[in-house]
Amino acid sequence: MVGSAMAADLATDADVSVTVADSRDDVLARIREACGAATVRADLSDPAAVGRLAAASDVVLGALPSRLGLAALRAVIEAGRDACDISFMPEDPGALCEAARARGVTVVTDCGVAPGLSNMLCGHAAARLSPCERLRILVGGLPVRREGPWEYKAGFAPLDVLAEYTRPARQVEGGRVVVHPALGGRELVELPGVGTLEAFHTDGLRSLIRTLGVPDMTEKTLRYPGHAARMEVLRDAGLFDERPLAVGDVRVRPLDVAAALLFPSWTFEEGEADFTVMRVTAEGRRDGRAVRCTWDLLDRYDPETGLRSMSRTTAFPATIMARWIACGRFRRPGVHPPEVPGAEPGLPEAMLDELGRRGVTVREQVLALD
Amino acid sequence: MVGSAMAADLATDADVSVTVADSRDDVLARIREACGAATVRADLSDPAAVGRLAAASDVVLGALPSRLGLAALRAVIEAGRDACDISFMPEDPGALCEAARARGVTVVTDCGVAPGLSNMLCGHAAARLSPCERLRILVGGLPVRREGPWEYKAGFAPLDVLAEYTRPARQVEGGRVVVHPALGGRELVELPGVGTLEAFHTDGLRSLIRTLGVPDMTEKTLRYPGHAARMEVLRDAGLFDERPLAVGDVRVRPLDVAAALLFPSWTFEEGEADFTVMRVTAEGRRDGRAVRCTWDLLDRYDPETGLRSMSRTTAFPATIMARWIACGRFRRPGVHPPEVPGAEPGLPEAMLDELGRRGVTVREQVLALD
Repeated sequence: MVGSAMAADLATDADVSVTVADSRDDVLARIREACGAATVRADLSDPAAVGRLAAASDVVLGALPSRLGLAALRAVIEAGRDACDISFMPEDPGALCEAARARGVTVVTDCGVAPGLSNMLCGHAAARLSPCERLRILVGGLPVRREGPWEYKAGFAPLDVLAEYTRPARQVEGGRVVVHPALGGRELVELPGVGTLEAFHTDGLRSLIRTLGVPDMTEKTLRYPGHAARMEVLRDAGLFDERPLAVGDVRVRPLDVAAALLFPSWTFEEGEADFTVMRVTAEGRRDGRAVRCTWDLLDRYDPETGLRSMSRTTAFPATIMARWIACGRFRRPGVHPPEVPGAEPGLPEAMLDELGRRGVTVREQVLALD
Repeated sequence: MVGSAMAADLATDADVSVTVADSRDDVLARIREACGAATVRADLSDPAAVGRLAAASDVVLGALPSRLGLAALRAVIEAGRDACDISFMPEDPGALCEAARARGVTVVTDCGVAPGLSNMLCGHAAARLSPCERLRILVGGLPVRREGPWEYKAGFAPLDVLAEYTRPARQVEGGRVVVHPALGGRELVELPGVGTLEAFHTDGLRSLIRTLGVPDMTEKTLRYPGHAARMEVLRDAGLFDERPLAVGDVRVRPLDVAAALLFPSWTFEEGEADFTVMRVTAEGRRDGRAVRCTWDLLDRYDPETGLRSMSRTTAFPATIMARWIACGRFRRPGVHPPEVPGAEPGLPEAMLDELGRRGVTVREQVLALD
């Protein structure tokens, strides 16, 4: 869902030669037709295959399912290639930092919209405010048409969506990491151009917990009101459990039953409109005065390219960053989350400019609080 | 859950000799120990076995799961024996009426608390009011201790509970049968001695739809507030579907997955307290004046006998009726729902007396409406 948007964006650039690898022939055919990128069929769950493909490239964009992310990234680093990744792997990719540094390889992980652009803006705010006291990220990708009972369709791998509904959510409160149950902390949020959505705890701070040292940080996911409560019922029923359950004379993972029941109705139809909404808020002091900086992103399905907003907003931060890594604009051997380039003077502004050129606009507001 | 309460009640009567049949040795041992009834191990899903056992008795009390009810009752009738049944079979037992009449056999079906006592009271009201304009039944059996997320435990076969949450609910409005989705029409109801419960449409009118000719009749089930909405989420997710679903390389019925996930937490613990609450309301005219008659039943777990309230209130109307059939106090060859004996002068009053002697009290109120 995202890789094709990455290919489409890179293919518009005469200086770039793109090769897309995937295991599915139909996906590759669609990409060749859509943007003319070269394609190669490969099993990317095999690190050796990833390593061979990486060796033939200058920079590698990873858009694999989260469970394949770490092994693939390790193979890229071992091939000595720079990389930008949006697999949102559950493991800490920092474990590969030494290996990358040793090979002079620059890697940026979690480089989508949120995590991704949100991290860049947080890194930017933490560098600009002194001190930065509070960061808050709200993000959601939703279908425009609300259809009961879920009022939701998945803009990325639906199993990764369900993981957001089960994984305990780490937030930072008063300088300490506090773990909340996922789907909790529900609150209604009014967003301009969107209306009323509901925000709830998800485990999206990830690297920010250890990189920024900001004492209060919250990440919440946005859905149409009621979705989280319904998901909570399914979760509390045990339907998202991964431990096999005896049902008559067979054994099934409840999570697989949930996937079979839900995902058919969670799939966008061809040409169906979606939108992405994100609000990052930073509070702190600038020149001694209390300020609140707010960045509002609202992006919609692009009927011209047929690219869904969730695909666009997730793909573009990665393709822009990959170009910067390739041309040396961001070069720092190691494995970094996006708040690291976000703290570099000029880079977050350039990211917003580049996104704007692609039709993804972010409105910035600064409000004096005293 | 109910058969043992029936045996306990009948065993207190020196004039009655009781034999309990079941396929489970442990259940039979428990009953022998609890009340000294004779027991016989038998496969009651086999109508021939039911017929043989029936032939050795004067009157047969049926307390089988609903799916076995019709075949067992047919076997009893073919053996020429009177019967009282609480299997709440999905089929219309009226189909057996001719066969019963031909053999001079009297059968009362649906003879629990609701259906059951509720039908008797409705039959009584319909006979006493002229005209009877409106009947409303609210009923629920609940654990005293509310434990999340379901705040519910099943006082009878849990698959039959889930059937209540899926089967479209037939109500009578303005003289016409109107079908509502189960779990819909939710409203909060304040009940003395209980507090606030939530009522929702279930398909409990059954025979009343065709027997009484009352133009407005509603049956709703009572649960702790929120239970119905949570069940609706599971139902809307398809988790109560009976059509096999492909999950990986196995096929399972979602309903069986629901049973495996939910029922362990829906099982009463040994000695756990429950209560049964029922309100039957009848509106109409008596001697030309508009009146509302209300019957309120509130019954609680009996720690002395260890019998749960749902077991007691379901068992006793059947054991009382069975005695009346056996001694000829109610004798009308055919298969009848309880509103038929309920319309006979003196019988509903006698039923309430007999229940009261067993500690199940029903408070009756008559209110003039004009």
